[in-house]
Amino acid sequence: MVAGEDVQRKTDIPGSQGAIKVTISEIAREAGVSVPTVSRVVNGRSDVSPATRARVEDLLRRHGYQRRPTGPGARAALLDLVFNDLDSPWAVEIIRGVEEVAHEAGMGTVISAIHDRAGAARQWMTNLRARASDGVILVTSVLAPGLHDELRRLGVPLVVIDPAGSPASRAPTVGATNWAGGMAATEHLLGLGHRRIGFIAGPARLLCSRARLDGYRAALDVAGVAGEDELIVPGDFYHASGFAGAGMLLDLPEPPTAIFAASDQMALGAFEALRRRGLRVPEDMSVVGFDDLPEMQWSSPPLTTVSQPLSDMGKLAARMLLDLARGVDPASPRVELATELVVRASTAPPRPA
Amino acid sequence: MVAGEDVQRKTDIPGSQGAIKVTISEIAREAGVSVPTVSRVVNGRSDVSPATRARVEDLLRRHGYQRRPTGPGARAALLDLVFNDLDSPWAVEIIRGVEEVAHEAGMGTVISAIHDRAGAARQWMTNLRARASDGVILVTSVLAPGLHDELRRLGVPLVVIDPAGSPASRAPTVGATNWAGGMAATEHLLGLGHRRIGFIAGPARLLCSRARLDGYRAALDVAGVAGEDELIVPGDFYHASGFAGAGMLLDLPEPPTAIFAASDQMALGAFEALRRRGLRVPEDMSVVGFDDLPEMQWSSPPLTTVSQPLSDMGKLAARMLLDLARGVDPASPRVELATELVVRASTAPPRPA
Repeated sequence: MVAGEDVQRKTDIPGSQGAIKVTISEIAREAGVSVPTVSRVVNGRSDVSPATRARVEDLLRRHGYQRRPTGPGARAALLDLVFNDLDSPWAVEIIRGVEEVAHEAGMGTVISAIHDRAGAARQWMTNLRARASDGVILVTSVLAPGLHDELRRLGVPLVVIDPAGSPASRAPTVGATNWAGGMAATEHLLGLGHRRIGFIAGPARLLCSRARLDGYRAALDVAGVAGEDELIVPGDFYHASGFAGAGMLLDLPEPPTAIFAASDQMALGAFEALRRRGLRVPEDMSVVGFDDLPEMQWSSPPLTTVSQPLSDMGKLAARMLLDLARGVDPASPRVELATELVVRASTAPPRPA
Repeated sequence: MVAGEDVQRKTDIPGSQGAIKVTISEIAREAGVSVPTVSRVVNGRSDVSPATRARVEDLLRRHGYQRRPTGPGARAALLDLVFNDLDSPWAVEIIRGVEEVAHEAGMGTVISAIHDRAGAARQWMTNLRARASDGVILVTSVLAPGLHDELRRLGVPLVVIDPAGSPASRAPTVGATNWAGGMAATEHLLGLGHRRIGFIAGPARLLCSRARLDGYRAALDVAGVAGEDELIVPGDFYHASGFAGAGMLLDLPEPPTAIFAASDQMALGAFEALRRRGLRVPEDMSVVGFDDLPEMQWSSPPLTTVSQPLSDMGKLAARMLLDLARGVDPASPRVELATELVVRASTAPPRPA
């Protein structure tokens, strides 16, 4: 705990203008203890031995030190931002957005990762209560339903950032337009002249995977191109599955001329599968991703992809949380921010047959 | 602020086993106000109108509600983790390490970015004091010297994570062995048979740039290979400078056969410069990076690079901070964790001339 309150000495110099500021370090030196120990005494913490406390308090009294008044109202606000894992460049984009809005509002952003473990989630809930957090932003619905209920009972406002489009939570949710993004990526490839377009899907249990796939199918349908099941291969959003999925597509009797991977990381996995077979992007195969992580400007070649506004989603979630904490209900229980196709160098017309 | 303390009702049912838990929501409903408003009253916050406060307090009294005793000692601990910018996959690696140790210790990790702006740093200091943080981890020496002094006066323990090797701060510092890493990368290329090795440097003002360059020079010297100034080009650790630096090296009358970029992001920039000229990695040019960001397993080709243990540096810094907060001084004011060469697919022997 910070000994943040300035410790002031009632001056004994006649005619002086007031208190002279002195430092905790000076007190520590005089008491022969560490600075953190003096802090703990000043802040009324219990983890100081009685003898040390007595010596420090005696010094404080003898020198006429006074701390500034403090109280619960003086504590700055906190919000909790909870991830399942901090294992992706994704996370830092969301943190950036949340932190910016929280910082402007004078709030601290507490980051936690609960690793899909009930024990870690339970510990987090205990910590949350103890630190008296003012609100919670969950990234995807990572909490067990029981913990959702507990937050509601505690009266802690909750906003869910849900790029994955998980089944409805009762909390206000910020997502992105996954279906429209899937359609835009596919239309771009169709517009370049591709007719056999492979699709590397995300995990089937996530609604966003479904939405991106449906967008792909809708675009083919609108263009009058027959979809083929063999062109749709499974993935899990991570690199290795993109590598494997591209391999499956390349092994087809009639491989596609373009691949739409439902995440940037799978698109990079596809890049590597193509490179190992001596195929070039985009000359031999066009590749489109989904997410637009900042690094994708510098993949080789720079990736054409669907931008998810992760940082903006973080900002919006933080603003909704500030509203909720003031008792203002959000205009809508679920908001989807627009995705946008970003055309770079990984797509080109198909090779003439 | 959480109304986290269970509100309990003194039961009026004779013979019952004790208090019946009731929810803040029930009180809110009865008072005709929002749940956060009841929370604010329960927690003694000032931002509630006098009339509302009176109505809610009246209800609390009439129903005999009691909050559990709380006090400064009951508040969970917080540590502040401060970045200049949250603009790199780097940041999330450090956050991951710090959060893991803090979480185990029951502490919350508050993330801030101060964007090289004095105003933001000043605001952060104000927030830090108000939230009574128990300690601070700075990533590189991003605070003005005056703020360092202020932290010391406040008695808030400070640890610096300094992959950049900035000029000495008086706080304990966790870094990495940049010189040894520069030497290891260069020795790897020499071992493959390269004699003309280009170096794309980091910002000259950072000591880590200097250490990596000196490691490169030392390895050449030990191998009896004459270093040439034209093979050393400037960079700033970001992608674009690696792209430009590789271009300068390729434009030399006698280009190198391998490039050592002092950051992974510059190595990716070099990849793109090579791709645009129709050159393949590693067949036509070997490339080594520095950092080993997680994505480098999936660059195309996977990057040979020097691993900086960013997540471990975060863990160690958090442990040092916990020690300092207990009054235990660190064994050494500066600790450097070992870097390690990770050989992947971007390096190979030079083409036979």
